[in-house]
Amino acid sequence: MRLKVKIFPFLAGTPICMIHKKTAEKMSIHVNERVNISKRNKTIIAVVDTAKSVIKKDEIAVSDEIVSALSLKKSELVEVRPSVNPISISYIKKKLDGYKLENKEIKEIIKDISTNELTEIEIAFFVAAVHSSGMTLQETKFLTKAMVETGKKIKLNGKVIDKHSIGGIAGNRTTPILVPICAAAGLVMPKTSSRAITSAAGTADTIETLAKVDFTIDEIKKIIRKTNACFVWGGALGLAPVDDKIIKIEKTVNIDSTSQLLASILSKKISVGSKYILIDIPYGPSAKVNKKQAISLKEKFLTLGKIFGLHLKVILTNGTEPIGNGIGPTLEMIDILKILRREDGPVDLEEKSIELAAILLELSGKVKKGKGKQYAASILDSGLAFKKFKEIILAQKGHIIDLHPGDYFNNILATNKSRIKHIDNKLLNSLARFAGCPEDKRAGVYIYKKAGSYVQKGEKILTIYAESGEKLNNAIKFYKDNPDIIELY
Amino acid sequence: MRLKVKIFPFLAGTPICMIHKKTAEKMSIHVNERVNISKRNKTIIAVVDTAKSVIKKDEIAVSDEIVSALSLKKSELVEVRPSVNPISISYIKKKLDGYKLENKEIKEIIKDISTNELTEIEIAFFVAAVHSSGMTLQETKFLTKAMVETGKKIKLNGKVIDKHSIGGIAGNRTTPILVPICAAAGLVMPKTSSRAITSAAGTADTIETLAKVDFTIDEIKKIIRKTNACFVWGGALGLAPVDDKIIKIEKTVNIDSTSQLLASILSKKISVGSKYILIDIPYGPSAKVNKKQAISLKEKFLTLGKIFGLHLKVILTNGTEPIGNGIGPTLEMIDILKILRREDGPVDLEEKSIELAAILLELSGKVKKGKGKQYAASILDSGLAFKKFKEIILAQKGHIIDLHPGDYFNNILATNKSRIKHIDNKLLNSLARFAGCPEDKRAGVYIYKKAGSYVQKGEKILTIYAESGEKLNNAIKFYKDNPDIIELY
Repeated sequence: MRLKVKIFPFLAGTPICMIHKKTAEKMSIHVNERVNISKRNKTIIAVVDTAKSVIKKDEIAVSDEIVSALSLKKSELVEVRPSVNPISISYIKKKLDGYKLENKEIKEIIKDISTNELTEIEIAFFVAAVHSSGMTLQETKFLTKAMVETGKKIKLNGKVIDKHSIGGIAGNRTTPILVPICAAAGLVMPKTSSRAITSAAGTADTIETLAKVDFTIDEIKKIIRKTNACFVWGGALGLAPVDDKIIKIEKTVNIDSTSQLLASILSKKISVGSKYILIDIPYGPSAKVNKKQAISLKEKFLTLGKIFGLHLKVILTNGTEPIGNGIGPTLEMIDILKILRREDGPVDLEEKSIELAAILLELSGKVKKGKGKQYAASILDSGLAFKKFKEIILAQKGHIIDLHPGDYFNNILATNKSRIKHIDNKLLNSLARFAGCPEDKRAGVYIYKKAGSYVQKGEKILTIYAESGEKLNNAIKFYKDNPDIIELY
Repeated sequence: MRLKVKIFPFLAGTPICMIHKKTAEKMSIHVNERVNISKRNKTIIAVVDTAKSVIKKDEIAVSDEIVSALSLKKSELVEVRPSVNPISISYIKKKLDGYKLENKEIKEIIKDISTNELTEIEIAFFVAAVHSSGMTLQETKFLTKAMVETGKKIKLNGKVIDKHSIGGIAGNRTTPILVPICAAAGLVMPKTSSRAITSAAGTADTIETLAKVDFTIDEIKKIIRKTNACFVWGGALGLAPVDDKIIKIEKTVNIDSTSQLLASILSKKISVGSKYILIDIPYGPSAKVNKKQAISLKEKFLTLGKIFGLHLKVILTNGTEPIGNGIGPTLEMIDILKILRREDGPVDLEEKSIELAAILLELSGKVKKGKGKQYAASILDSGLAFKKFKEIILAQKGHIIDLHPGDYFNNILATNKSRIKHIDNKLLNSLARFAGCPEDKRAGVYIYKKAGSYVQKGEKILTIYAESGEKLNNAIKFYKDNPDIIELY
């Protein structure tokens, strides 16, 4: 059927088109089915939506992607035909029925996700099938490979290292400390990070208090050539982009299957060519995983690491409570700057950062086994780490400025003399989000005490900061409704 | 945040809104998350999409549903706030993790599907979870009840009967024959049917060759008061409407889980108040189910029937090949009219229709056990069934006309003397669809022989009919590519 093009840039990110309900009936096409749209010898597959108004019977409204793929102009005629379903749907069905998938089947699914030939509903079926039926390590290997192959890659010279922390712990912003330590030691660290999704801040949000994080791959290469490292947002770089699409779908029902988690982390690291990789798995009652799950995850990481020829070290760390005192982009950066400047920063954050840097220095062969901590600490103490940090911030078009948390604040005081039993990561992240994190960079929570500390009556336990009185009140209300955030004996 | 309304009637059928990408970032809202849109004291939940053009930063584009729910006008200001996820998402996650669901959890999921609070992606996760983890009969009972409760109901006087055939067999159009037999005998039969989705014709498509099938519930009640029965399209009546939404999602990956199938059929029957129900399960190599699956399905139907206090009879019938000779709306109606007029119609279709009518007559106590067939045949032979059929067609704003298949046709002849081994239902349906079914009502296939029949060299095996030369050629090509449609010894 020949239809007239109406340019209608809706639903950015997927090739979708809209035709009149009557036209769809005539073509025996239902909502969410596919059509081939052709102009001369170019064809694109698009998912169909229908409407009774807005569009005439001889028209087809197309999204930006289709306009550019076919170089379309308004009112131009295109040929529209029902399209057959991609074969990958039968592989998704196979996984739904509990069967193991072959390499070529996984490749086909990932390719079709990458080219938008599978709809989000079909991707949801794939994600659900993988969650319910699980994947063998063999399948996870195929999944990781396919995710790398469908994305861009960064090639760098030198010993390329990387680090990944399984999220869930409030604070825990070790990256901006350990990256300059390792880079100052001569290692190459193309660190890509995410923005916060459910937490108070991601590393990208925190770095943004001082510099830009959104760069192209070419710009990133320049930054690394100049400084050995970077702290950039990985979201729009096109490194294993299918991973981002799958995560987006997983978030809708808040699932995170193990095989997808493994493939997600490894595919990003392989795409930037990292050979020496440290995986940090914090475990604890309010962390993402408990000890048993952490041990099982570690074994899987090690096996896959071997398969991909990576020098992989996996450590299980204490994830029972926040690390550092500031929670929220600005408050976390203030902690980081104190440590880099050798001022009075949070000891737990400093110790963990040195520990992780030490492992990377040893793993990459930069220093002998057992000498990493001493070397990392010396780089930090000598001011070389702060010098390197400033170089990277400058290369990322920023500079070191004085940071201040939000003007609206409220101190939470101890009502009695007591001792802190437990601080809940999840609730603390929620508290910071109610205060405005991560959008309001100066919002957040500052905690003065950790588990085991004694508090006197009237002593400050935490301060909530916000950029508006309304958000401060929301956060105070959330704190009152959730007294378990800080559990006392 | 206060945003200006832009009316944009896209994505009909779900409350969806579109805001500028920057506005979404400011509100920390991602695509597919939900917002509350409020005007004065009315609030509606909508799923968010974002765009970089088409819409300004201070605008919100809303769908038809939202416009009418909040009585909005163009450029009016509404308050838009991030909304919390419905609790039903956690129940979907519970099922994804393999757990049994409670009554209140299933109710909540079905309620949220019915009010559009769950997105299609989330419904896909529910469908996948039910498919992968299965449901107990107890859960299926809860599912059926919840689907009935969220829909409209029809209350009728008299002995209300119903019949359902599990699809997949080409032809097999017994409904238009058995309904008038039972209605002539004084039984009440509010038969709702579907349109074809993957087959050549649904009962609704076939009836449409003579009459209308699209009525409101009030109109249906009038038709039944006048004639005791109806043949209407069930799709837009709002009887167990969640079932339709779930089926739509299931179709995208072509799955049909047992518990959903059971709930789907029973919820529709319970919604129209049927007490005496016959379920026909055809089995065979190219039917929907094999014998083992048919037996297991029968047991489940019987158990659920007891739970819901229904007089349920389940029969397993021969589904190895098509029933009747015509495949496609017009060709099937021609077969039906021949039988009703006591002309030379297909024997297998006549026998099956009498058999099914007989069971309903006996099940409802209209005649004694063992007397059904004789009574049904006498109604057919006496012309009472045809008289009743005409009454119903008239009540549905139609009349009996001479029907002719499409003008473009091609005879497929036997190339050798042989015997027919097997006719494939699925391929035959596809052949008819290539010829234009179900949209082109006069398209289809007429088969002259059934399995076991001998054919002479040059004798007709089947005729393909189409309404255009192009579609006829498509069908011929499909036939040549799929010689297995009719397998010879």
